Amino acid sequence: MTGRDEATLSPGDTIGVLGSGQLGRMLSLAAARLGLKTHIFCPESGPAFDVCAARTRAAYDDDAALSSFAASVKLVTYEFENVPAHTAAFLAARVPVHPNPFALETAQDRLVEKTFINGLGIATAPFAPVDDLAGLVAALDRLGRPAILKTRRMGYDGKGQAMIRPGDDPAVALAAMGGHAAILEGFVPFTREVSVVAARGRDGGFAAFDLNENEHADHILSVTRAPAAVAPATAAAAMDIARRIADALDYVGVIAVEMFVVVENGVERLVVNEIAPRVHNSGHWTIDGAQTSQFEQHVRAVAGMPLGSPRIRGRVEMRNLIGADALDWRALMAEPGVYLHLYGKHEARPGRKMGHLTRVIEP
Amino acid sequence: MTGRDEATLSPGDTIGVLGSGQLGRMLSLAAARLGLKTHIFCPESGPAFDVCAARTRAAYDDDAALSSFAASVKLVTYEFENVPAHTAAFLAARVPVHPNPFALETAQDRLVEKTFINGLGIATAPFAPVDDLAGLVAALDRLGRPAILKTRRMGYDGKGQAMIRPGDDPAVALAAMGGHAAILEGFVPFTREVSVVAARGRDGGFAAFDLNENEHADHILSVTRAPAAVAPATAAAAMDIARRIADALDYVGVIAVEMFVVVENGVERLVVNEIAPRVHNSGHWTIDGAQTSQFEQHVRAVAGMPLGSPRIRGRVEMRNLIGADALDWRALMAEPGVYLHLYGKHEARPGRKMGHLTRVIEP
Repeated sequence: MTGRDEATLSPGDTIGVLGSGQLGRMLSLAAARLGLKTHIFCPESGPAFDVCAARTRAAYDDDAALSSFAASVKLVTYEFENVPAHTAAFLAARVPVHPNPFALETAQDRLVEKTFINGLGIATAPFAPVDDLAGLVAALDRLGRPAILKTRRMGYDGKGQAMIRPGDDPAVALAAMGGHAAILEGFVPFTREVSVVAARGRDGGFAAFDLNENEHADHILSVTRAPAAVAPATAAAAMDIARRIADALDYVGVIAVEMFVVVENGVERLVVNEIAPRVHNSGHWTIDGAQTSQFEQHVRAVAGMPLGSPRIRGRVEMRNLIGADALDWRALMAEPGVYLHLYGKHEARPGRKMGHLTRVIEP
Repeated sequence: MTGRDEATLSPGDTIGVLGSGQLGRMLSLAAARLGLKTHIFCPESGPAFDVCAARTRAAYDDDAALSSFAASVKLVTYEFENVPAHTAAFLAARVPVHPNPFALETAQDRLVEKTFINGLGIATAPFAPVDDLAGLVAALDRLGRPAILKTRRMGYDGKGQAMIRPGDDPAVALAAMGGHAAILEGFVPFTREVSVVAARGRDGGFAAFDLNENEHADHILSVTRAPAAVAPATAAAAMDIARRIADALDYVGVIAVEMFVVVENGVERLVVNEIAPRVHNSGHWTIDGAQTSQFEQHVRAVAGMPLGSPRIRGRVEMRNLIGADALDWRALMAEPGVYLHLYGKHEARPGRKMGHLTRVIEP
């Protein structure tokens, strides 16, 4: 509903959320702090269903269900970037959708995303679209090896990716794409992975949390530390990049921008990896370690409320509890200084995000 | 179910909560952090209904509804001390109830409560039961004026109380009791009101938050500051009193003990005012100002989980938003350093607790 006048939400109003995972759950908990209700819409039952005022279990192409959902809420937001374009458009015709569908479309397709970012004069990994084996071979000639072949859409946590090293058969990597449109990305010899989690309000106001430094294991975020151990100028440059991206998307809500830090001749340089148009795992520490959590900040932004202070309370470490990690909950609860969060998922399957913990070292 | 072996709850389990107000709401939000679900039981719809996994709207004497409720939860707790005795007994025969019904009975009747506290060698205001006008006149002769006549049961936030000053007609005060059994309490010339909010675990472990100093307006809590500005020995004595009361009640969960500080010859002395067998308004600052909130601490205690650290993060002030105070939410949200909580109540009636805010001054 871009361009239409929008009322600020008031306590008692209901926010619609697409997706019933842990991000929707933590959004619901944050909305509740501010006296707002949530209505969760998802094809599958999930942990957000346990903490919301209303829930709809229906497919994302069920227009009747979407229509009732839209009628029951003041605005719609979402916890994941793969909201189908039809769903976003259908809802946006009825009720404000934040972040806007343009941000969704941009973030959903790696080719569109990188083209958009480069268009702002911001560096990404070198890339080339790949439609077939001949195209892949040509792209490899141009970008060199190693390189990473990825599906353009629907990839997350390393799914839909294949590394192509010297000697590897490109056809094997291409087959791994399962016939989906792909993109080849040149290898970036990074020293650190960082992310900016920031909010942009309806009035264009911008508030970034301290820069996150991220460690992955098996392509899944394992640990985030904030503030990141980079030069102050690098942190400032990262904030500037995130702000330019958010401004260009006319973004409202919390956005995460993942970046690589590359060191060349002793100087740090930033290369954007990807945008997440939503609250982000690397911002979970803000619940316990910042004046305002990323979840409350997202709610404030989309609801047209004043942004809160993103001030960090010390040095912070967030650790994901993946699969069986969460079975140690009792010992973790007893550990002094640990803030434990469990998502209420029934089964601790390998690779599944079951919870996280935060440690705050106050100054 | 005292004495029976009880299983520790695990993430995914459901806690039953009697009462749907803001305390039940904040208990639900805290339970969710730990991966637990809540089932709220209340005759009236309230703000806790918006953040729970299941809700039952039924009377507290509806045994069929209570029976289904008990069958759906691993244990029952409550947000208010006026749970009817039948309800507590009916549930306790089916499922663990924490804090136990003995704590409820003790806290529900001012006469029983003060007798119990004095029995532990702990000071209260002087008091006398009042059954009729002759008894009231005799009690006034003994305790002097001013004195406060209170209903023995169901009083909170100053309801069911009448001050009797020199010259006042005792019959008017007695009539204000509406025929309910009453107690006369001697006036305590206090300099401060303080409260201990603490948790006792199933294993007898005890963890108190810093001593609260409370200001009331129109008999309703207005401001809490922690730590209270009392001598260290006074704070230690207050903790000791709370612990002895909790031990004597074989208490499990968060308890609040309200006390008066009386200064005699320059020395601070404590007089217990009342016990609240539940999370307490003067502990709301712990959400933002302590390592573990009183709500999470209560959930941990009743669930048989390890108690968390009650460490305070600085100097803290909590201010209740009563009635129209909450209409300023937008300005309060924009104020740096303010943590705002709104309870999602529909109508800002005078005297109604609509939310609270916390300020933390870090060291």
